[in-house]
Amino acid sequence: MFLKSEFDIQFHLPEATPMLALLHVHPSLESGLMTGDALRVEHLEGEAPTELLVEEFLDAFGNRCSRFAAPAGRIRLSGCNTLSVDAEPDAQPVLARQSPVEDLPPEVLQFLLASRYCQVDLFGGVAQDLFGYTLPGWQRVAAIRDWVNWKVAFNYQTARSTKTAMDVFTERVGVCRDFQHLAITLTRCMNIPARYVMGQLGDIRIPYTGPGDFHAWYQVWLDGRWWNVDARHNKPRPGRVLMAVGRDAADVAITTSFGRADLKHFYVESNELDEQGNLVPLPGGRPAKVETPGV
Amino acid sequence: MFLKSEFDIQFHLPEATPMLALLHVHPSLESGLMTGDALRVEHLEGEAPTELLVEEFLDAFGNRCSRFAAPAGRIRLSGCNTLSVDAEPDAQPVLARQSPVEDLPPEVLQFLLASRYCQVDLFGGVAQDLFGYTLPGWQRVAAIRDWVNWKVAFNYQTARSTKTAMDVFTERVGVCRDFQHLAITLTRCMNIPARYVMGQLGDIRIPYTGPGDFHAWYQVWLDGRWWNVDARHNKPRPGRVLMAVGRDAADVAITTSFGRADLKHFYVESNELDEQGNLVPLPGGRPAKVETPGV
Amino acid sequence: MFLKSEFDIQFHLPEATPMLALLHVHPSLESGLMTGDALRVEHLEGEAPTELLVEEFLDAFGNRCSRFAAPAGRIRLSGCNTLSVDAEPDAQPVLARQSPVEDLPPEVLQFLLASRYCQVDLFGGVAQDLFGYTLPGWQRVAAIRDWVNWKVAFNYQTARSTKTAMDVFTERVGVCRDFQHLAITLTRCMNIPARYVMGQLGDIRIPYTGPGDFHAWYQVWLDGRWWNVDARHNKPRPGRVLMAVGRDAADVAITTSFGRADLKHFYVESNELDEQGNLVPLPGGRPAKVETPGV
Amino acid sequence: MFLKSEFDIQFHLPEATPMLALLHVHPSLESGLMTGDALRVEHLEGEAPTELLVEEFLDAFGNRCSRFAAPAGRIRLSGCNTLSVDAEPDAQPVLARQSPVEDLPPEVLQFLLASRYCQVDLFGGVAQDLFGYTLPGWQRVAAIRDWVNWKVAFNYQTARSTKTAMDVFTERVGVCRDFQHLAITLTRCMNIPARYVMGQLGDIRIPYTGPGDFHAWYQVWLDGRWWNVDARHNKPRPGRVLMAVGRDAADVAITTSFGRADLKHFYVESNELDEQGNLVPLPGGRPAKVETPGV
Repeated sequence: MFLKSEFDIQFHLPEATPMLALLHVHPSLESGLMTGDALRVEHLEGEAPTELLVEEFLDAFGNRCSRFAAPAGRIRLSGCNTLSVDAEPDAQPVLARQSPVEDLPPEVLQFLLASRYCQVDLFGGVAQDLFGYTLPGWQRVAAIRDWVNWKVAFNYQTARSTKTAMDVFTERVGVCRDFQHLAITLTRCMNIPARYVMGQLGDIRIPYTGPGDFHAWYQVWLDGRWWNVDARHNKPRPGRVLMAVGRDAADVAITTSFGRADLKHFYVESNELDEQGNLVPLPGGRPAKVETPGV
Repeated sequence: MFLKSEFDIQFHLPEATPMLALLHVHPSLESGLMTGDALRVEHLEGEAPTELLVEEFLDAFGNRCSRFAAPAGRIRLSGCNTLSVDAEPDAQPVLARQSPVEDLPPEVLQFLLASRYCQVDLFGGVAQDLFGYTLPGWQRVAAIRDWVNWKVAFNYQTARSTKTAMDVFTERVGVCRDFQHLAITLTRCMNIPARYVMGQLGDIRIPYTGPGDFHAWYQVWLDGRWWNVDARHNKPRPGRVLMAVGRDAADVAITTSFGRADLKHFYVESNELDEQGNLVPLPGGRPAKVETPGV
Repeated sequence: MFLKSEFDIQFHLPEATPMLALLHVHPSLESGLMTGDALRVEHLEGEAPTELLVEEFLDAFGNRCSRFAAPAGRIRLSGCNTLSVDAEPDAQPVLARQSPVEDLPPEVLQFLLASRYCQVDLFGGVAQDLFGYTLPGWQRVAAIRDWVNWKVAFNYQTARSTKTAMDVFTERVGVCRDFQHLAITLTRCMNIPARYVMGQLGDIRIPYTGPGDFHAWYQVWLDGRWWNVDARHNKPRPGRVLMAVGRDAADVAITTSFGRADLKHFYVESNELDEQGNLVPLPGGRPAKVETPGV
Repeated sequence: MFLKSEFDIQFHLPEATPMLALLHVHPSLESGLMTGDALRVEHLEGEAPTELLVEEFLDAFGNRCSRFAAPAGRIRLSGCNTLSVDAEPDAQPVLARQSPVEDLPPEVLQFLLASRYCQVDLFGGVAQDLFGYTLPGWQRVAAIRDWVNWKVAFNYQTARSTKTAMDVFTERVGVCRDFQHLAITLTRCMNIPARYVMGQLGDIRIPYTGPGDFHAWYQVWLDGRWWNVDARHNKPRPGRVLMAVGRDAADVAITTSFGRADLKHFYVESNELDEQGNLVPLPGGRPAKVETPGV
């Protein structure tokens, strides 16, 4: 399956500010990249945009991270990738087994621990109450995912940057990152490594649902590998574009600015292309305005 | 300066349980090790102790981590190191400058982020209120350290595993880890990388203060290197034995058991030795019972 | 000064649900009522509205509380009062003294205690840090009010029903109730009784600011009486219509439904009338749409 | 049944401090008082104790509250009551029905609301998950009481004054007040009024359990009256001496000091007397040291 994934995000900075961005596809997807995975950072003041120097490095989780010193004024971060990804919807490995902790690869162990938004230490009793009776392995993972999906309502207006898994558990409402934080926390409590994923999931082979955005999901470690799980969209979906992994959203902010940055423009789309590079129609069609710039 | 650092920690496990331990000296101290840095893990049931197989690996922060499958019953973790360390008290680099975020080494950036016990995202306003007026660099670091030391009271009985920097800020009481969590959080809010350290700090060249324990402190990144800071013992001290570093206490638990483990015995001591390998007397003397077993 | 205060609030109830409402003017204003202070509760299903039976009682704080059993369907709560109130802006009693706790009237003591959204027990240290140096009495009250007004930003979209004074202190953003909760908490920490007020404050003798709403402010006990204070609108204002007082918002919800109730319509206005009963023009004028229904 | 209930509590005050105390038996028990229910407050400095003037009033919940201006130094609060109480253990009204909210007496409604330690607004989903299936009325009350008793472990060392129902729910450990706070919160979520009770419950007709203390339990409103429930001692017990009721522990602190007060001595006992005024032996006996002073 071919995907075109693009974004154009603009901020106004009252003062010069250093910034970080996680806006590349994840190194694990690089072999499928058909066009360069370039992040362009521009200063939009004056007559023509000025391209800023961007330093790249791999962070502690192996994500391709970018850093730049942004001058005051309007800043644009943009990019466009064409890539080939697996056309299969998320696998449902119903027989996948849970490894005993003593057999987990060492690098996976950190995804059992408590982190900023996933307070594993607070959920021990709750997780046992709710999921102590389930069978280890995929059935337990699926029970947690389904429970979160069923109990939590989606509402964009309830998003806030300080919202933890405990807040989601009590308020029962949130956005995609909140669903995943709660599910990750409960999964870790059951000794299954779980990590947070930030990426894109466009309307691929499903009816149009609205303007694009980044999306969060998570991965669990069973049978010696990571598997995608999504407590928000609780149906197997094709077309995920993984951009960064971490313990939780604190590790994989799309952008981090060390000073004030006011969001002014936000365009993110991910769509399927056919072999000729044309947009694949959606079942039920796609509104005209979605014609992505530059297509 | 020569140190003898030793511990004997025993648990009763109702059931077989996998465990992790961070009980080695940190790799950065290995060049000073005069005797082997061995962690011995024994099962104490039956007539003679049985030594358990221990797997070693470096965790995501470069700490020497141990993992073993502990059978039910009594488990002893013990070790004894003799090592040579710098005899100077903690440096006070009063002129050390704070690097702009854009100049920090990438591997240091994670120590600016929010973590389980250090909710950087909650303290932005508080940190600006309290320390916005201070000069960048060491003066800012010292102002934060001094404020925490002054405002928070020490009380062993207030320790709890779920206590966050925010809890310390409101309750104003805690143990060493709590002092450091609050100071780390405030330091990160001012864009200075700060990481949590777990190790030992015995009564070295100071009067006897009581039975030994592990100790937490923190490190800040200024002028291109890490510096020890201690918001609990706010005086320069010699004789720190660094064992593990991480974002906060969630990353560097001395032991982590994935099942119930009841602490039954806890002996930790770190003392200065002279060149002949004898204990160096403390100013004011040392009570007889402190004669460490095997000395 | 004459005011016309009115509201029309409508809910859809999926099922029959008991409800409480605090929608009368406070008994202390009753002597100024020129028309009856009636709350009308109607069921809007069928051809004509059916008026529901409403029981009235005084709650523990002396507020006029209404209770009714609402059937499923659409419910309207409406009322319209004309009343005469003091035309003076909020008094600024700069010399008002703080009573020692031992001299406070017993019924006032409860407004020193911690309550749901005002965690007095968590703010002791913070309050001393910030306001320990201020002079007792009005100067202290004003210092707290000004600090909250200065540090907290107003944003409707950050409202949530679980938001406590501590959340406001850390997030530094909120709606009117949040400003008051933080100010009340800090005021109580300094041993000055403070209670939460729910009422109306229309655009009276100030330029038009937008559609009306209920408003929260608070009162402090100095010199033997309650004084209005408003950490959100930090300027003396005339035209407050007090409806209910309590420890915090948990005590004085405008409506409480013991089952699901979805808000469908919300109209609240409070405006000044002249002696002929006509709306008094605002400086700068009032948009046409504000013509209140029935005027 | 005759009870002798006594206490001797001493503080050291570094400075003169106003204090409140709730140390009388509740007005509802006054008809059973056989000796006067006097609270004596003394200043212990100098050669002889000086009795302090104590003002009495009823607080907002009808409790007999005392207030006094304590000078610096050592303060003793003491009292001794002999009273006749019902000898029956706590009733278990298995058929008691839950009143619809619209039929509750107005003065009971406040015990459905959120309060400082009972965050009803945070537990809606949890309460429905756990108890939504139970039958209304006593069965629901008993299910909540039993669940809390089963899930929470008792541990004196985990007491802290800021601990909320949510903390108890996550930490699963606490003292008597913590058990009751969690049970009260869950009970209110199910629309059953629940209030916190502070009083005494000695070792009456049960084997000796240790030195006396005050005790917290709660009451639920069913069938038109309050019933005692105790999620800590989940067995019907005789001999409760009710001292004060409120929404939660914030309302009924035994003593409140508006300045520093260090506890120096704490003696509380409640024991059964026979008709001759002698202590009734306990099954298994009572240690000699329990001989109460002055008996």
